[in-house]
Amino acid sequence: MQKTGETNVIFKTIMAAVLSVCVFLMGEAQAQTAPVASPASEYLFNTLLFLISGMVVMFMAAGFCMLEVGLVRSKNAATICVKNICLYSIAGIMVWLFGYNLIYGVGEGGLIGKFGIWSGDDANPLETGFASGADWYFQMVFVATAASIVSGTLAERIKLWPFLAFVAILTGFIYPIQASWEWGEGYLHTRWAFADFAGSTLVHSTGGWAALAGALVVGPRAGKYAGGRVAPIPGSSLPLAALGTFILWLGWFGFNGGSQLAFGTIDDAISVARIFVNTNMAACAGVLTALVLTQFIYKKVDLTIVLNGAIGGLVSITADPLHPAIGQSLMIGAVGGIIVTLAVPLLDKLKIDDVVGAIPAHLFCGVWGTLIVPLTNPDARWLGQILGIIMIGLFVFTTSLLVWLCLKYTVGVRANGRDERIGLDKTELGLEAYPEFAST
Amino acid sequence: MQKTGETNVIFKTIMAAVLSVCVFLMGEAQAQTAPVASPASEYLFNTLLFLISGMVVMFMAAGFCMLEVGLVRSKNAATICVKNICLYSIAGIMVWLFGYNLIYGVGEGGLIGKFGIWSGDDANPLETGFASGADWYFQMVFVATAASIVSGTLAERIKLWPFLAFVAILTGFIYPIQASWEWGEGYLHTRWAFADFAGSTLVHSTGGWAALAGALVVGPRAGKYAGGRVAPIPGSSLPLAALGTFILWLGWFGFNGGSQLAFGTIDDAISVARIFVNTNMAACAGVLTALVLTQFIYKKVDLTIVLNGAIGGLVSITADPLHPAIGQSLMIGAVGGIIVTLAVPLLDKLKIDDVVGAIPAHLFCGVWGTLIVPLTNPDARWLGQILGIIMIGLFVFTTSLLVWLCLKYTVGVRANGRDERIGLDKTELGLEAYPEFAST
Amino acid sequence: MQKTGETNVIFKTIMAAVLSVCVFLMGEAQAQTAPVASPASEYLFNTLLFLISGMVVMFMAAGFCMLEVGLVRSKNAATICVKNICLYSIAGIMVWLFGYNLIYGVGEGGLIGKFGIWSGDDANPLETGFASGADWYFQMVFVATAASIVSGTLAERIKLWPFLAFVAILTGFIYPIQASWEWGEGYLHTRWAFADFAGSTLVHSTGGWAALAGALVVGPRAGKYAGGRVAPIPGSSLPLAALGTFILWLGWFGFNGGSQLAFGTIDDAISVARIFVNTNMAACAGVLTALVLTQFIYKKVDLTIVLNGAIGGLVSITADPLHPAIGQSLMIGAVGGIIVTLAVPLLDKLKIDDVVGAIPAHLFCGVWGTLIVPLTNPDARWLGQILGIIMIGLFVFTTSLLVWLCLKYTVGVRANGRDERIGLDKTELGLEAYPEFAST
Repeated sequence: MQKTGETNVIFKTIMAAVLSVCVFLMGEAQAQTAPVASPASEYLFNTLLFLISGMVVMFMAAGFCMLEVGLVRSKNAATICVKNICLYSIAGIMVWLFGYNLIYGVGEGGLIGKFGIWSGDDANPLETGFASGADWYFQMVFVATAASIVSGTLAERIKLWPFLAFVAILTGFIYPIQASWEWGEGYLHTRWAFADFAGSTLVHSTGGWAALAGALVVGPRAGKYAGGRVAPIPGSSLPLAALGTFILWLGWFGFNGGSQLAFGTIDDAISVARIFVNTNMAACAGVLTALVLTQFIYKKVDLTIVLNGAIGGLVSITADPLHPAIGQSLMIGAVGGIIVTLAVPLLDKLKIDDVVGAIPAHLFCGVWGTLIVPLTNPDARWLGQILGIIMIGLFVFTTSLLVWLCLKYTVGVRANGRDERIGLDKTELGLEAYPEFAST
Repeated sequence: MQKTGETNVIFKTIMAAVLSVCVFLMGEAQAQTAPVASPASEYLFNTLLFLISGMVVMFMAAGFCMLEVGLVRSKNAATICVKNICLYSIAGIMVWLFGYNLIYGVGEGGLIGKFGIWSGDDANPLETGFASGADWYFQMVFVATAASIVSGTLAERIKLWPFLAFVAILTGFIYPIQASWEWGEGYLHTRWAFADFAGSTLVHSTGGWAALAGALVVGPRAGKYAGGRVAPIPGSSLPLAALGTFILWLGWFGFNGGSQLAFGTIDDAISVARIFVNTNMAACAGVLTALVLTQFIYKKVDLTIVLNGAIGGLVSITADPLHPAIGQSLMIGAVGGIIVTLAVPLLDKLKIDDVVGAIPAHLFCGVWGTLIVPLTNPDARWLGQILGIIMIGLFVFTTSLLVWLCLKYTVGVRANGRDERIGLDKTELGLEAYPEFAST
Repeated sequence: MQKTGETNVIFKTIMAAVLSVCVFLMGEAQAQTAPVASPASEYLFNTLLFLISGMVVMFMAAGFCMLEVGLVRSKNAATICVKNICLYSIAGIMVWLFGYNLIYGVGEGGLIGKFGIWSGDDANPLETGFASGADWYFQMVFVATAASIVSGTLAERIKLWPFLAFVAILTGFIYPIQASWEWGEGYLHTRWAFADFAGSTLVHSTGGWAALAGALVVGPRAGKYAGGRVAPIPGSSLPLAALGTFILWLGWFGFNGGSQLAFGTIDDAISVARIFVNTNMAACAGVLTALVLTQFIYKKVDLTIVLNGAIGGLVSITADPLHPAIGQSLMIGAVGGIIVTLAVPLLDKLKIDDVVGAIPAHLFCGVWGTLIVPLTNPDARWLGQILGIIMIGLFVFTTSLLVWLCLKYTVGVRANGRDERIGLDKTELGLEAYPEFAST
């Protein structure tokens, strides 16, 4: 092929232009100015975030189980294990049957979602940006977390089957309806810009309100407030409680980090990393605050309060683990530690018997964490936060109370005195958690 | 540089063409019509799937250890820990020395692979699509899982060293040879389209058959079937057994999810997410079925059966966690829960003493899960499934039996009566698992 | 638009050229010859490696806690839990306040970094290649690991508050300064090409030296070396110690694998996978060596030594988990197992009371692993390794000794005899770890 001088010039010109166009296009795709991963990679990163985060949040079920089994007496230890593994199982089925569509079928500004089984459609993957099953899995383990909170508070005297019935209603209906108001883009999200990043209110306070309603209906354990005094009832295995707390702390990285809901861009990665740091810092502050406070108040360090300090710090930061500076995260977590330390005797004064301290850690710290969001997140408003806390609190508490009362006046919720004295392991399960170990 | 009118037109024309070509090419790479990640990203995603999944499957070793240590008596608790950490270690070395090449060197339609040390070649990374070490790691932890199943069944009376010798042969030869028939593209895969996605038969039944052969050779624990009655021998720490079950459940997401063997395309991500959901659902169904059944049959909920219900559900779905609809997964897992509940007394009738219930959960549910695959996977055939189950069962059971008998008639497999009565911790290890806790 | 014959030829020519340019450019981006992920994907993979690895290393805090709580007597079990959760919390805050900038602000060839709070700047993401928070998180959990080592050695007689004070200084200053010499590209890295991939010396020996200094200052537990004999003081829950070891083993995949610091290229992925395999192999060898050795020496298998064998193998491979062939990894880990087995009686001869065997496993094996690096890593030099071990050893030991002595002669470090006899749980915490279990 022959090239004239003119075409040669044209050729060179065009090649230069082509190169610059190509470089420009490639640049768009993968280089300096605006680097993004390809849509397919983005999809994979997002899905991976859901799956990995979901796994560690799933493992929080083990964390709650160990925390609770360590803080109950050995005569109820096997029963609390049954409750924890069953509540996780029930949550899985109820979120499939009702929960997911109640949360995400609510429509903008709405109050109640759709009833119906989750279908798991992956028809237009690039539009959703992640595998629908991964998202469902991640949401489901959140619901299970809320139910786990309830089992701890009511341990040692609630009957197994009524508890499981409550769990079904909580995970299938109560949790999903209130969660839809925010995460389903419902009323609170649209009208009030309510901000609850990973669920200080939606998950933890919800679990806490349900537990509080249950505690009022079921009443305190026999002997806890006998003769006007508060009798301490120590847990049977503090090492297992410590293990449970470490597992929960681990799981919280998935809980808060996964709530970014995306890992496909550099900005998302920076956000998730930031969330990890803030989440950890709040927990550290909660631990150390509880440590110092119990030393000052009681002249002794109380391990169970220190463990709850970690949880209190974690719950507190959960409403916004993204925006706070590290110093702010420490402060938010430290207040969580203070709340946990001071609220335990308060509940005892009110004769509300919360076996594992779940109400202070999850309900009170959940309220605190949600309240403080506008300090760091400019999109949140104080009024919106307060309204969200009240609206969700009222809804969860009253519906839970109603369900507990229905259960109380039909099948009964409380083990009889003899069963409680002997322990639920023998009466409900016919076995012992530690059959070989003599008790003092 | 001068441009004539003509070349200007040409230039514009060409630029338009170039742009469309570029856009077309970019589109291929990253956009709407056929989105795939780049080969390098695909490689990284695939490798990451193996590594993350491998880690949680590795952690199943801790799960089995806790499950078993919780279900044996405290006098044998330290010994079961030694067995579990050592069997995992032996598996690692044997899979390197023999196992890997036996599995993957079998050739199409073959029956026995190559003998030789795994070399770990990464010469043509893009052809394999993942780092060879990541694949090796993932396969190795699978082999260790099969060995873990055996230790539970034979606990409390088998001698340490003969057990470890058996583990070496199981992990180095028996498991790899049968696994090669399917995963190495050997006889069952090529000739019978045998389908066992993540190893209901290849891993779990294999462990179960080896355990059954061992149980027959070693015999039941002293006193278990004395006087024609079945004496219940309760486990020493049910909370640890519950912890172990949760860890296993967690690990199963890696076990089944990682068995997709790829995470580099949107289709793979959708599949892995689907596998997570189905795996979880089957476990939920197993738990709740066992819960309800034990309540009906025994009028008490049995925690150990509920825990085994989770495992039974998980094993059942393992042969095909990808194709079933969620409702089908629930059904498959529920049958697993039924099997576990009903098979425990059946084994006792046969005087087969299975300390942790591993034979029902892993062998029987593994058979069930493999049998039901053709219901949901159109590529599987009933005859192929039955043939695979029988062929692998016969091979694993007879070779295991042979090895157990060899061990029995040479070094002996069973602790003597005195040692068994005192407990293996004192006689084999010279220590106690819980030296400070008085026994009842 | 009209095309003349000539321009038609030109057009075709150019299109062919353009196509080849495009294909060439695309090829650079994603195809056969030099496959790399896009910069954005690389960034995401790197960040993900830090976050996932960081999570499992964080979980090692639970592993250490369980290992230690299982190896102390039950009267000190709750105290060791307090120490472990608090040391992790202190590490988080100190690494933020001082540690990070001391490590990475040292400058090439320097000896001491910058004082100042970590700011967490993500201004030029593509230059760093990962989210700064993810890196910080990963480094922080490493520091916490070093502190965890100390708590085990000094258990059962050190007072809570002085211990926590030491942890603050170790994690805020001592660890970061010596780590800067290598990982901050300071003196040892620049001048001596000192090689310590994931911290056999920087993390494990550092923890070990600090523990040794503490053990010398605090002295042995009452009764341990009474009357010239070594009194064995068995741990209260070997199953929890086994659980802790499994958790540590799991965490080590993140510890060593994450230390590749990148997962954005195929080479990185191959390296991380290789690290997983070598890490696992060294641990397997450590376990089996300790198993066989204790059987030979003591005629009984010692579970606690077998568990420490795993840790010894893991620490030994940590200085270079990347370069060794698998056979070499086995050898390196096996020597770790030997060291652990033989060093325990040695320490007892020197009347150094190391409750959990942390000094053999972390200090001695850390030295061994660092020493052997030049065997497999051509960039490392024997002299550089020896110098690094000595320099870091001298620095950490003397500064730690100084701090311990300051604490001893001000607030006191040792619980008084009565408190030690009763147990720190009752005297420091006013509670019991297992209040219901009668002791023998």
